[in-house]
Amino acid sequence: MSPPNSNASQKRAVVLLSGGLDSTTTLAIARSQGFELYALTFKYGQRHAVELDAARTVASRFGVAAHWEVPIDLRAFGNSALTAEIAVPKHRSDEEMSTDIPVTYVPARNTIFLSYALALAEVATAQAIFIGVNAVDYSGYPDCRPEFIAAFQTLANLATKAAVEGTATVTIEAPLLHLTKAQIIARGLALGVDYGLTRSCYDPSENGAACGACDSCRLRLRGFADCNARDPAPYVANP
Amino acid sequence: MSPPNSNASQKRAVVLLSGGLDSTTTLAIARSQGFELYALTFKYGQRHAVELDAARTVASRFGVAAHWEVPIDLRAFGNSALTAEIAVPKHRSDEEMSTDIPVTYVPARNTIFLSYALALAEVATAQAIFIGVNAVDYSGYPDCRPEFIAAFQTLANLATKAAVEGTATVTIEAPLLHLTKAQIIARGLALGVDYGLTRSCYDPSENGAACGACDSCRLRLRGFADCNARDPAPYVANP
Repeated sequence: MSPPNSNASQKRAVVLLSGGLDSTTTLAIARSQGFELYALTFKYGQRHAVELDAARTVASRFGVAAHWEVPIDLRAFGNSALTAEIAVPKHRSDEEMSTDIPVTYVPARNTIFLSYALALAEVATAQAIFIGVNAVDYSGYPDCRPEFIAAFQTLANLATKAAVEGTATVTIEAPLLHLTKAQIIARGLALGVDYGLTRSCYDPSENGAACGACDSCRLRLRGFADCNARDPAPYVANP
Repeated sequence: MSPPNSNASQKRAVVLLSGGLDSTTTLAIARSQGFELYALTFKYGQRHAVELDAARTVASRFGVAAHWEVPIDLRAFGNSALTAEIAVPKHRSDEEMSTDIPVTYVPARNTIFLSYALALAEVATAQAIFIGVNAVDYSGYPDCRPEFIAAFQTLANLATKAAVEGTATVTIEAPLLHLTKAQIIARGLALGVDYGLTRSCYDPSENGAACGACDSCRLRLRGFADCNARDPAPYVANP
């Protein structure tokens, strides 16, 4: 917990890092605010393990003080395209994408992720936890809403030894909460993020190329288009 | 998720089960309230793996509909006698036991445990989560307090797909919260709990005998004494 390049006087943040566009932008925002970075990546039997490689590359490029990879077993929970053998939906209509809770929903996922982050924040004496949830493009996920983040903040204020002893509090930061995908990308580009390192696809090919047709790819490609920017990540030829 | 002995019309509860005295009593209380039981046990690198065997025996004896054992890796978090190589304190004074946050504290442990329970409750369409936390004998643990449980209830009301869609809500039940150890034991005995199956010791011997001297053993033994009952669990000869 005391990595060699840790700086005792610098404020610290645990940043949830999947290796995707949103979490990488969040990492860049935390860095821009002067935080020493403690990246936290979950290995949860997701099919797109290519994301894990992306997370490692991103963490390395950002020079994080530590990168934790925590194995968690969500496969036993079933019911999600991200962890089980259910087909990832493609070419869904805008209305379907904006109103349905997607089949890619994992029960209580962000609750579990933030719980681990809270534990690690206590161990690392971090002042903040950064999470790249977004309520605009992912309105279907219950645990991506502002009221969910607020409720977790209340819980965090009660849950730890440090909070009870008054020695430290942890702030839950969700800087992307109210941004559109295009705004997120513009923010990241302004901060120098190399989006070629990031992976967002729910159904990438063996060599890591994005499918271009799942909800995540379509939101990402539209975001770049709205920014008049080109997505530098690799895609399959005919989505 | 659909065990062969599941009864579709019966209400269901996820019960956090460590194999200790408190969680086993909690399981008995849930059963007495008519719930079909879904036991959830964490394998978190605790030194007292004898608890795991106790949890399996208890789950089997109670005829649970399912018993999930979820591996979680808390060792990376460090700083706890329950998961690391720190000596378990013994023969502490009553004042030390009642006021200090023990070295056996695991950061954000109950937050993580309840998060998993919430996910599993959603998958199993359970109406309740039972947790055997206690604010009387374990006042040192921040995540054993009533306000922590209340905050998690608020979070649970926001965190799941079922809660958002209005199809189901999950109630967090902590029936031991305000009971003394003696009251917990009396309640369990009245419900027919065989405490000889349960294990509470932080530092058991190889053959599973309790040490009799750690905080957990002393609270337990005092509880039985206050009930004028004998603890049927095995102890080492000279604590």
